[in-house]
Amino acid sequence: MSSYFRPAVDAMEGYIPGEQPKPGTRILKLNTNENPYPPSPEAMAVLRNLDGELLRRYPHPYANTFREAIAQALEIPLDWIIVGNGSDEILNLLIRACGEGDHRQVVYPTPTYVLYKTLAAIQPATVLEIPYGENYQLPLDALLNAQGAVTFIASPNSPSGHLVSNDDLRRLAAGLSGVLVIDEAYIDFANDTALPLVREFENVMVTRTLSKGYSLAGLRLGFGIAQPKLLSGLFKVKDSYNIDAIAALMGAAAMADQTYKNQCAERVKHSRQHLSQELQKLGFKVPPSQTNFLLVTPPRENAEEIYLGLKARGILVRYFNHSGLEKQLRITVGTDEQNQTLIEALIDLI
Amino acid sequence: MSSYFRPAVDAMEGYIPGEQPKPGTRILKLNTNENPYPPSPEAMAVLRNLDGELLRRYPHPYANTFREAIAQALEIPLDWIIVGNGSDEILNLLIRACGEGDHRQVVYPTPTYVLYKTLAAIQPATVLEIPYGENYQLPLDALLNAQGAVTFIASPNSPSGHLVSNDDLRRLAAGLSGVLVIDEAYIDFANDTALPLVREFENVMVTRTLSKGYSLAGLRLGFGIAQPKLLSGLFKVKDSYNIDAIAALMGAAAMADQTYKNQCAERVKHSRQHLSQELQKLGFKVPPSQTNFLLVTPPRENAEEIYLGLKARGILVRYFNHSGLEKQLRITVGTDEQNQTLIEALIDLI
Repeated sequence: MSSYFRPAVDAMEGYIPGEQPKPGTRILKLNTNENPYPPSPEAMAVLRNLDGELLRRYPHPYANTFREAIAQALEIPLDWIIVGNGSDEILNLLIRACGEGDHRQVVYPTPTYVLYKTLAAIQPATVLEIPYGENYQLPLDALLNAQGAVTFIASPNSPSGHLVSNDDLRRLAAGLSGVLVIDEAYIDFANDTALPLVREFENVMVTRTLSKGYSLAGLRLGFGIAQPKLLSGLFKVKDSYNIDAIAALMGAAAMADQTYKNQCAERVKHSRQHLSQELQKLGFKVPPSQTNFLLVTPPRENAEEIYLGLKARGILVRYFNHSGLEKQLRITVGTDEQNQTLIEALIDLI
Repeated sequence: MSSYFRPAVDAMEGYIPGEQPKPGTRILKLNTNENPYPPSPEAMAVLRNLDGELLRRYPHPYANTFREAIAQALEIPLDWIIVGNGSDEILNLLIRACGEGDHRQVVYPTPTYVLYKTLAAIQPATVLEIPYGENYQLPLDALLNAQGAVTFIASPNSPSGHLVSNDDLRRLAAGLSGVLVIDEAYIDFANDTALPLVREFENVMVTRTLSKGYSLAGLRLGFGIAQPKLLSGLFKVKDSYNIDAIAALMGAAAMADQTYKNQCAERVKHSRQHLSQELQKLGFKVPPSQTNFLLVTPPRENAEEIYLGLKARGILVRYFNHSGLEKQLRITVGTDEQNQTLIEALIDLI
């Protein structure tokens, strides 16, 4: 055997996660779109007096405690829900169940979440990337022509922050014979959801995460919603016990506390508005965002320079050196106080 | 597209985990080889006063807190360790990185852990199953002739409970050009380990779990130990953040508390000896075991009948209806008190 690994694995590079300074480091982290507010106190309360018996035993293979809380919060039947270690695991299961070589391609508009490409490379499934039109218009005809085995639409999208309309998504779902995945990682900061499409189309899955709106990025919880026929293939390829017992209980408590999540999201949306105005005053181009981040263009388009200047001042934002994004920075919306610190550093820099 | 799923996924059935009654059900569970003792108090102490900030942020992508504790407990360099959601995830990563179709087969002696077959079917990678010889003698020549891309040896093995000698494993490692995985899920109840082979052979990985010896089945923690070259391919295919922040901290605390784990394992081994004697008094055949379970043959070889009779009395043991195991039962070693309850039920039944 010439290598321990499959050719696809030898050929690929691994996914590089965003920079994560150690907890306790005095850094203002506005680079990986975490929520600036702490998790729900109801979720944290699960940890008090937790019974070791729960950990001694294997957990429920489908994490039904967590699924039941999702079902109740979103008014979805239990058997329309699959849960995973972050929505990343759900995206992975989708490609593992559906994608393969040239004949079962993975298709998505770009720029978008870069993990789709990594997951397809592992499988391997051939990727077809179709650039967004001007002002992030969905390339509907090209996506339909491609007829991917899986088509990913992040909505709201990262790094652009725009929401794809349900009209466009409906046309896509109706015209695709493969699976349409609507990745709603940032939905808690948006004005609309594509969730109703799951009832209308058997080939649609909506994925969500507790990493953003629920402030639980460290707990690795996400879920997918689709009709049972579509879920059946994903249940076959998932690990036997993919959610641990503590995460299932905390996730259930967080889902049940929609009030807290909504309050935090409202504060973030309010701060987003204010930060956007302040950046525009400094001459930045700031398109509207339906997420907890802004994709901005500095007045002199010197994004990398500003990224490095902020980093030297202890502020991390996201700089992508992909084609087409070199002049832009993605900035996570922090608290008003954190955003003020950022603005002051920018005034100093430009 | 004729199906949403790849042909391999359409063709397979999902893995069926062992029966798991709800917590609180009055059932004596001796069917899935959990440890009868609670997790380390040091691990449980992590949950007191845990900072929500740890959960708001993404966790470390390689769970280094946990890896450092493993490195220290086993005197292994940090970069020789990969951690996963149970050793099941490590087994999955191995097949994803190395197995493919007919030309990169997955090979193992049978009977053994049935998950290997399920994971290979997902990939898909062709499986070659080679039956153990009499008294579980390793089919060394046939395994060497097969030259699998991945060869799995569970040692101690389930369901048989026997340990494969390091001499046999060395011959296998030296003669294979692919990866030899030594699955040490039950090693904490055994008299020897194959861990030294990792230093001797670049193609050897030893996998371990915290589900058995450390009483943390509910937390989903396991790890693999191999030289960095072998780990490099697995790091490429793993999820970006596969271990959550709480599990990483609790796993680190559990690994640091080797004294507690060893005490619990000694108690289990003592109870195993006593249970074995009591079963033999009832006429059961009880081969020696290096694990926390016994694979026994009832005097009248009526394994299914006894399984159902025990179940009716609220005692779960494992009955496999595979060819070759129909006359046997796999019984997890409980506390002495639990084992006594089992013995009394058996006296009643036979």
